[in-house]
Amino acid sequence: MDLQLPKGTRDIAPEEKIAKDKIVNTLKEVFELYGYAPLETPLLEKYDVLSSKYAGGNEILKETFRLKDQGDRELGLRYDLTVPMCRFVGMNPAMKMPFKRYQIGEVFRDGPVGSSRYRQFTQCDVDVVGSSSMSADAEIMALIYSAFKKLNLDVVIKVNNRKLLNDVLDYCGIEKNKQEAVILSIDKLEKMGIDVVKGELKKQDIDDKTIGKIIDILNIKGNNEEKIAQIKNMIKESEGLEEIQQLLKFLKNINFEADFDVSLARGLSYYTGTVAETFIKNSNVKSSVCAGGRYDNMIGAFLGKGNFPAVGVSFGVDRIYDAIKQKNKQKTNTKIYVIPIKTLDESMKIAQKLRDAGINTDIDSMDRGPSKNLEFANSLGIPYVVFVGKKELEDNKLKLRDMKSGKEELMSIDDVIKKLKS
Amino acid sequence: MDLQLPKGTRDIAPEEKIAKDKIVNTLKEVFELYGYAPLETPLLEKYDVLSSKYAGGNEILKETFRLKDQGDRELGLRYDLTVPMCRFVGMNPAMKMPFKRYQIGEVFRDGPVGSSRYRQFTQCDVDVVGSSSMSADAEIMALIYSAFKKLNLDVVIKVNNRKLLNDVLDYCGIEKNKQEAVILSIDKLEKMGIDVVKGELKKQDIDDKTIGKIIDILNIKGNNEEKIAQIKNMIKESEGLEEIQQLLKFLKNINFEADFDVSLARGLSYYTGTVAETFIKNSNVKSSVCAGGRYDNMIGAFLGKGNFPAVGVSFGVDRIYDAIKQKNKQKTNTKIYVIPIKTLDESMKIAQKLRDAGINTDIDSMDRGPSKNLEFANSLGIPYVVFVGKKELEDNKLKLRDMKSGKEELMSIDDVIKKLKS
Repeated sequence: MDLQLPKGTRDIAPEEKIAKDKIVNTLKEVFELYGYAPLETPLLEKYDVLSSKYAGGNEILKETFRLKDQGDRELGLRYDLTVPMCRFVGMNPAMKMPFKRYQIGEVFRDGPVGSSRYRQFTQCDVDVVGSSSMSADAEIMALIYSAFKKLNLDVVIKVNNRKLLNDVLDYCGIEKNKQEAVILSIDKLEKMGIDVVKGELKKQDIDDKTIGKIIDILNIKGNNEEKIAQIKNMIKESEGLEEIQQLLKFLKNINFEADFDVSLARGLSYYTGTVAETFIKNSNVKSSVCAGGRYDNMIGAFLGKGNFPAVGVSFGVDRIYDAIKQKNKQKTNTKIYVIPIKTLDESMKIAQKLRDAGINTDIDSMDRGPSKNLEFANSLGIPYVVFVGKKELEDNKLKLRDMKSGKEELMSIDDVIKKLKS
Repeated sequence: MDLQLPKGTRDIAPEEKIAKDKIVNTLKEVFELYGYAPLETPLLEKYDVLSSKYAGGNEILKETFRLKDQGDRELGLRYDLTVPMCRFVGMNPAMKMPFKRYQIGEVFRDGPVGSSRYRQFTQCDVDVVGSSSMSADAEIMALIYSAFKKLNLDVVIKVNNRKLLNDVLDYCGIEKNKQEAVILSIDKLEKMGIDVVKGELKKQDIDDKTIGKIIDILNIKGNNEEKIAQIKNMIKESEGLEEIQQLLKFLKNINFEADFDVSLARGLSYYTGTVAETFIKNSNVKSSVCAGGRYDNMIGAFLGKGNFPAVGVSFGVDRIYDAIKQKNKQKTNTKIYVIPIKTLDESMKIAQKLRDAGINTDIDSMDRGPSKNLEFANSLGIPYVVFVGKKELEDNKLKLRDMKSGKEELMSIDDVIKKLKS
């Protein structure tokens, strides 16, 4: 048989899965620290839910895996975790608000594949549904900082506000019906550079003077207060600017700081207020590792009823993994490997004692000689091995080997446990 | 829009997800304690892998969700975790043996749905590939006991051996080519009772005397030693009996005990040695919650090459959840809910302090009054709330309320932290 994986998918081998699990567990811990509760939804959704007007949109629908069940019902593999959350909210009308949920799960896109583009990948979303307070936006930024601190990654969060961007475009003289397209062009500034943005704006029939005005504002320099002061001078009254100021004030109050960046746009059209992107400092991962914002209209529009203000972000588990894997050399969670030297019964007892003491333990089950076993433990990266020989057993001793230094010591099982627990 | 879930699927709401995660985390911890490493494989597999001769078989293939990608490639949603593991072993020929892996993930069956039959459900598999030693079988039994001990469930493991069953049927005079069908009938003893088994055997043209002989053996009473002695008296030499004796000896050596039950058959035809089923004592969950056995030929046959002895079991996460949920009343992982009384800035600081101390904390973001907030915290089952009023703040105090007893106490933030951490 020709063994192959489906195009655009991959196995996560133990060594990588250990690192991925560690990231996911850290994120979960922090989400719960901030009062978010876990949700799980099926990987399959009805196709009419995935394709409904205010769901993911046409572009994403083209990349949706479609299938039918035996009853000829149209289904699809979910392409994100937001649509399932909206459906869940809609199907549970008695739910208390705010609904603070996180969800970590696989999503699917039947699109082009590339070096870091897969057809199945992990999404990790945190959202508050039901609250329109900027304190919720601030809480999510604090959560982002706490999460990356726990992951030992130094990050900066850039924030902006969609209402403010609209006010800025009003000030520059861009008509309302053109603003969405202009914002989508501005979104390309970070990735493609200023010339691409200028070119796109020109194509949208915006005159050079107006383009200059927009670019000047996007280039405003200084610290948060200085930038806000300059913009305030121009646009005067702005709900968006007030929201940003309140967000930054709330953050300062709890000892966090975000970078206000009026050029931050975020590509998706459903954002209505705060937008945010998180970048790792001094990393070869240049793209954002956590992004999102406030989307006060989407859930209500999707459900066709009710008022569901919401704010949320999505963590890029795969990119975080890429940033961490250079640092992380841990290939196994196993602490010690027991090598019986014609002492299987006694060795099994010793392995059990180590496990009962809470130490992750493996033991040879292949009846191999000591050198083959050492090679095996080494290939797995297990940090300690213990040899169980007859002579040593008579003296109630074991020979513990530190695989890194190669140092060997004779000691009792209790001392082995003490050493490995410390 | 008519919001619906695909037939046979369900949402796992936060309250249930918390309990499910706890089970899964406990199992993972124990798997790693025994030296097993995690593996993740895609939810999609190529259809020709899923349908290959030694994969899941025709019955399961009828229930496989099929789909195509945009390149018209035939895919399917995986129906178990064993086929993906075999594929992974085949695609990684340099892998060191034994390969001790666990995998927890969703699988799909497009079959009939019922009260506890879903089209998407969680499987949780632990397997050792590459070792034919009974010490590996014993290790897996020890792992099962350790896992259920950690889950606070009292279980018994029933064990038998397929080779022994064949030897017993030889002794009874059943021809080799009929033995598989007879074993599948014996498998129904526990669920359907003795009369159904007798009826089925009759249909297979087995005479009454032979049926009587089989039933007598299946009904053998006594402790493990007594049962083994009786069978030994009849069948004399038996590799299967020797294996069972060695398994029980190994288990005793590490202070565990399994129940030898010669009537245990396990429905699947690929088992070649040890078979095991685990039952919870004194529970309304009567079905087995963890089952499996040794399958020394399957992986080699599937891959069309190599010798890959293997032993493994599958934990029934959903059934374990059913057994635990009566006991488990925990509705949230949030420990404390902060209620600002016109003190949002100060309250956010206090929430941050609690979170920095590692206490799972939530805070009102709806600007609600105290009684509405109390009702909210109560509906979520959060065990403590803290009121942050201006007057109390002046005295550096907070009012902590124990939601269960209703008792309220004035104390400093440090004392609140101390109390909740203890």
